[in-house]
Amino acid sequence: MELKEFFPFWKTLTPDQQARMTASARAYTAKKGEVLHRGQADCLGLVCVQSGVLRAYTISDEGREITLYRLYQRDVCLFSASCAMRAVDFDIFIEADQESLLWIIPPEVYRQLMEQSAPAANFTNELMAGHFSDVMWLLDQVLNKKLDARLAAFLLEAADRENSDSLSLTHEAVAGELGSAREVISRMMKYLQSEGMVAVSRGCVQLVDRAALEQLAGDSLR
Amino acid sequence: MELKEFFPFWKTLTPDQQARMTASARAYTAKKGEVLHRGQADCLGLVCVQSGVLRAYTISDEGREITLYRLYQRDVCLFSASCAMRAVDFDIFIEADQESLLWIIPPEVYRQLMEQSAPAANFTNELMAGHFSDVMWLLDQVLNKKLDARLAAFLLEAADRENSDSLSLTHEAVAGELGSAREVISRMMKYLQSEGMVAVSRGCVQLVDRAALEQLAGDSLR
Repeated sequence: MELKEFFPFWKTLTPDQQARMTASARAYTAKKGEVLHRGQADCLGLVCVQSGVLRAYTISDEGREITLYRLYQRDVCLFSASCAMRAVDFDIFIEADQESLLWIIPPEVYRQLMEQSAPAANFTNELMAGHFSDVMWLLDQVLNKKLDARLAAFLLEAADRENSDSLSLTHEAVAGELGSAREVISRMMKYLQSEGMVAVSRGCVQLVDRAALEQLAGDSLR
Repeated sequence: MELKEFFPFWKTLTPDQQARMTASARAYTAKKGEVLHRGQADCLGLVCVQSGVLRAYTISDEGREITLYRLYQRDVCLFSASCAMRAVDFDIFIEADQESLLWIIPPEVYRQLMEQSAPAANFTNELMAGHFSDVMWLLDQVLNKKLDARLAAFLLEAADRENSDSLSLTHEAVAGELGSAREVISRMMKYLQSEGMVAVSRGCVQLVDRAALEQLAGDSLR
């Protein structure tokens, strides 16, 4: 993927700004499991995912990791350039979930661009708002810790019932079963999928990691 | 407080932009307990706190409140203008904790300003990063800290805010603040009381042993 494809505001930049971005960006292949960014101590730069998957997470005092969100092809990772932004006062870690081909733009180049270009600054804003939304969703889950456990329990039950780990189920139908809304179930399914517990395709849910689902369901059974 | 005092980038604006902001801003006095903004359905505008305190919170499906952050004098509230930003996909509620004098700027005026002015867009960015940091801290609290330490920290904070060791607080309200359930808080209060740290009576909590509370809170305050 070309660098400019990541930035919807590319055409609003001056030729100089475009040239600076292009000249400073380097292509990098991250190995599976490679940790690219370790909190505020690091400042790798803005990372654009050409292919592969990155995972953003935090680590508790006790060393427990919690996944905040994942970045897929076409996504831009903001917090690996957190030193380019003021008021970012928390530690995020970024790891390659798979071998990933990236563009990396140095933080000072991106900071300068944001200072010069309102479209660039507003794009940054939008990225942050998207990540913020992910974290708010996660907070809600953690606080209300029910639907994820209930969904896992429901899927395990259904698999037992059907005697198959491959379930023919629409999100609408699951929402009906759990007294929730379709969009809520879709988002939760996406989360379970990103955690490698299920594989979702049109009208079908495949149980991939039964042990993890059982552990998750345990919360609601206790 | 004058409007321009809230915006460190004020001098970078054109006279036209300044005039538009000034002409569109209205002073508003929110009563104690008044809910100013109810999630994505509302879009009040950018709110600047001249005096008083605003509380930003979310509400779970079960109607449980959790406080995300508070806004004091000189603070600017971004999410009451969430419709002015793309990719904000969560519901925040804003309530006046005390009678508060505000400036309110219509969302479309602020959105236009962000589109025109890189300094305004970067300021918005900084506000969002600040709120993001608050929420990340909260997530960490919820995930990792013990409720007893959080409750102690909360009581000490409230006492500082009210400038009194005698707090008018229901267990319900405390549960809302800490993202817990009333029964859980009641039980924990009973524990703190049995340890001689507080004295609890109907709708009132008295801080009895500040030193012990501070030691307990130490875990979460660090």
